[in-house]
Amino acid sequence: MDIVIPIFNDFTALDAIGPYEVLRSMPDAKVVFAAAAKGVVRTDSRMLGLQADASFDEIEAADILLVPGGWGTRAGMTDEVLLDWIRRVHATTQWTTSVCTGSLVLGAAGLLRGLKATTHWAATELLERTGATYTSERVVRQGRIVTGAGVSAGIDLALTLVAEILGEDMAKAIQLGIEYDPQPPFDAGSPAKAGPRIVELSGMARSRKTG
Amino acid sequence: MDIVIPIFNDFTALDAIGPYEVLRSMPDAKVVFAAAAKGVVRTDSRMLGLQADASFDEIEAADILLVPGGWGTRAGMTDEVLLDWIRRVHATTQWTTSVCTGSLVLGAAGLLRGLKATTHWAATELLERTGATYTSERVVRQGRIVTGAGVSAGIDLALTLVAEILGEDMAKAIQLGIEYDPQPPFDAGSPAKAGPRIVELSGMARSRKTG
Repeated sequence: MDIVIPIFNDFTALDAIGPYEVLRSMPDAKVVFAAAAKGVVRTDSRMLGLQADASFDEIEAADILLVPGGWGTRAGMTDEVLLDWIRRVHATTQWTTSVCTGSLVLGAAGLLRGLKATTHWAATELLERTGATYTSERVVRQGRIVTGAGVSAGIDLALTLVAEILGEDMAKAIQLGIEYDPQPPFDAGSPAKAGPRIVELSGMARSRKTG
Repeated sequence: MDIVIPIFNDFTALDAIGPYEVLRSMPDAKVVFAAAAKGVVRTDSRMLGLQADASFDEIEAADILLVPGGWGTRAGMTDEVLLDWIRRVHATTQWTTSVCTGSLVLGAAGLLRGLKATTHWAATELLERTGATYTSERVVRQGRIVTGAGVSAGIDLALTLVAEILGEDMAKAIQLGIEYDPQPPFDAGSPAKAGPRIVELSGMARSRKTG
């Protein structure tokens, strides 16, 4: 099972690493982080770099393509090298997926026209401009295209994928392996749950940090 | 707020990146990934490398020290360079923390004697050999030492820390920023919830991949 995760300047690390940790736990998983050029790619915080072990032109196919989000997706939406590569790899995949604003890139590549999809709650208008219909579900499946909501939703998305690919028992075993028994100390993970005051504070703290 | 995350061969990426994504969202956060030597450090899957931007000997102090887990902690428990560095930095911290089997390293450094602590559910005996008393809570606070359970628990740990440092509203705003409204498709995140059959399957799938 070949899993390819493209990374680019100003991507959000957890968008990629949450589902990576689940998907790489499949017994036959082979994960490759790829970028326009091999080498270290900085995340949106600029305080972390991940190594791209392959360049896009070395990757022609994947069983699973997973596009993370982050501020860098805004540039990604008009990066024809990235978009062409995504279209080419998508033609070969069993599953084409995104986390957070990674769906903006799938949308800009023309893959979401007429489909339901999700993204980070602060990017829904941008998503709809690509021809998708935003839906606030955490994981949205449309055929072989699966989009996940903001940042941490990639873990739920990946467990859903593993259940489809290898069955529920393996998904549960991997959930147990990463001890994913979430106990957030607060219940503020969506705009509706957090309320307008926290939404405003989040926007101020986030500025250009996530999205 | 200086946050230092040591990484080492065969660490588990999500142990580090979950709490990184929360902590770096604090308005004044400065996160540094450090290792014995600067450069790319491979995770336990060998399919991912993270960049260490600093070497241990460049870091003498931190406000928050966060030690991730992973198979590499077994070597870490007898790595005197790592353990000495942890003891030195711990002497300067406001918070010394671990995720998953990162607590084995804190324990081997002598920091957990007589304290309650947690770790990955599969590593509880090793933890207790360091003088700690294992407790199955997801986040265990003992003064300024805070340990988290396996892998994904680092997100809950970090939100708990932010609430202590900057108050509940900022913790909620960051939770909203990463859209942490977990909806795991199954309820198998602890051995008790998963049951013995899935525990066995997890051990087979995990082999030396996590822990």
